[in-house]
Amino acid sequence: MTDLIRSLLDDLTSVDAASADAVRERASQTLRPAGALRRLDDVAVHNAGWKATTTPSIDHPAVVVFAGDHGVAAAGVSNYPSDVTAAMLAAVRAGKATINAFARSAGATLDVHDVGVGEPTGDIRTEAALTPERLDGIAQVAVDAVDSTVDAGADLLVLGELGIGNTTISAALCAALIGGDADRWVGRGTGVDDDGLGRKCDAVAQAVARVAAVSDPIEVMREIGGAEHAAMAVACMRARQRRVPVVLDGYVATSAVLPMHAAAPGALDHCIVGHVSAEPGHRLLIEHLGMRPLLDLDLRLGEGTGAMAAVPVIRMACAGVVEVPTFAEWFGE
Amino acid sequence: MTDLIRSLLDDLTSVDAASADAVRERASQTLRPAGALRRLDDVAVHNAGWKATTTPSIDHPAVVVFAGDHGVAAAGVSNYPSDVTAAMLAAVRAGKATINAFARSAGATLDVHDVGVGEPTGDIRTEAALTPERLDGIAQVAVDAVDSTVDAGADLLVLGELGIGNTTISAALCAALIGGDADRWVGRGTGVDDDGLGRKCDAVAQAVARVAAVSDPIEVMREIGGAEHAAMAVACMRARQRRVPVVLDGYVATSAVLPMHAAAPGALDHCIVGHVSAEPGHRLLIEHLGMRPLLDLDLRLGEGTGAMAAVPVIRMACAGVVEVPTFAEWFGE
Repeated sequence: MTDLIRSLLDDLTSVDAASADAVRERASQTLRPAGALRRLDDVAVHNAGWKATTTPSIDHPAVVVFAGDHGVAAAGVSNYPSDVTAAMLAAVRAGKATINAFARSAGATLDVHDVGVGEPTGDIRTEAALTPERLDGIAQVAVDAVDSTVDAGADLLVLGELGIGNTTISAALCAALIGGDADRWVGRGTGVDDDGLGRKCDAVAQAVARVAAVSDPIEVMREIGGAEHAAMAVACMRARQRRVPVVLDGYVATSAVLPMHAAAPGALDHCIVGHVSAEPGHRLLIEHLGMRPLLDLDLRLGEGTGAMAAVPVIRMACAGVVEVPTFAEWFGE
Repeated sequence: MTDLIRSLLDDLTSVDAASADAVRERASQTLRPAGALRRLDDVAVHNAGWKATTTPSIDHPAVVVFAGDHGVAAAGVSNYPSDVTAAMLAAVRAGKATINAFARSAGATLDVHDVGVGEPTGDIRTEAALTPERLDGIAQVAVDAVDSTVDAGADLLVLGELGIGNTTISAALCAALIGGDADRWVGRGTGVDDDGLGRKCDAVAQAVARVAAVSDPIEVMREIGGAEHAAMAVACMRARQRRVPVVLDGYVATSAVLPMHAAAPGALDHCIVGHVSAEPGHRLLIEHLGMRPLLDLDLRLGEGTGAMAAVPVIRMACAGVVEVPTFAEWFGE
């Protein structure tokens, strides 16, 4: 049970320090004042180390979107009914959603996987979100999705999601795995009013209380996570095994991988947080993870859009080290 | 004298409110939760209004780089000698500088214009930077540069610069046109030490005192500006006349256009600040202008790099409105 997930965490692929060091050294000698692009140089170093290359570039970015429905939606935690998930899934498949437009703009491929649209997870207030068997099945879908994308040449992976009610799930994961009252982690999501916010808090508090005795982060994920959350968590770890850096999107994507961090410190070192969402819990979560987002644009859409917005910046960061000569190369010419 | 510059300010092209309104309306109905990408929607609306189109897109971004030298460099205000400007100009012309790599990454064209490399402006501590005749000549170069770029199809313009010593000029422009002590506006530029910082402050204070009685912002620009600053100011206003929105880069580019704002309120309404620089004066300057940067990545290179990093985000913002159906279009299908 959950052997696949545990195996991904047991033997974490390490950063290639030699590649990272070589790119850091090159960045320090590139034809510009020392440190003028330090933040971007760090991104290039990160990319180099995880891909184990001294010439990092982003030639084939990819977004993989997972979609699922949530039993907790019955608690009235969203402005939208659950069947909107299916409608948005259809829009993504038709190339019509915002993430499709952003992916085209960034030159990224897009794949979308249904891990439970119309088949909601258990209502986390009162029951486990996922059976062990269902979690195993989702994990296999996620591994296969990443393998297919990486086999096709992906060199940077954005994880995206669709799922009405999924910020409630995210708040529950944060509250259970980090701590603090539910209202610290609950935001307005797609835009619920004060009553909706209250219902979200209540649902989160009830779910967290229900799993108070569960200490294994993977079990917490199974109990109060979502199908698309679990898929993103597994996809993230499989990408590491395949040496493909991951760009995390907003609150849902980042909370989805939180159980991996809780289970294995350093498990998210191959990730960059693409942007910080307008959903207030996201900033707290990023701080908890000790990460720093690249962009801060008050976005709160999900689908992978905020992470995709960061992809061209990551591409430039790599180009800024790889394509620009060092002082020695330029003045020696 | 300076008739060309004054004519650009006398009859400011207006935003096309009908186009802006149409795109704002469309953004409010696009297939995603209302306001989920508000900040990017605003960028698309801005782009639409200034280009007078209801289908804004960024198909041909361009960067125009101006390079010049500064008499004030003799005051020891930079870590680098003035002949580094010529070396960097050669690197840009060879396609080897960071801005070249960034422009390629963003699919942007690049042109570079020498407005005074090896021909430093007057030392602003004791004399006018530019004669009226030289300013007129620079203005003509800038207008021609923009016209050539726009005639070639540019639909978004980044202004970049090269010029050892030019952050000292920028600090002088801000101190003279906004006010406050020199040390409020002086930063470390390419990385001067404390002594260098002191020399920068002294030079700025001396220049500002020298022009204390000058009230015309264009005369202030001529007295204490730089050749590349003046070129960027004129290019910025010519772009407006040609209905091409401008992305401002860091401290040098933004201070360069400050005299236009001081001379004609609203003159910079067609501009977006692409990023906020690590140079501390830039944040204060942006606040003074009432603008908000898209990116905040601690960059301090110049060349137009920070603005170029924002270009793909602006492109996505437009795609996110134009390429995504409205709820009515999608559910009506």
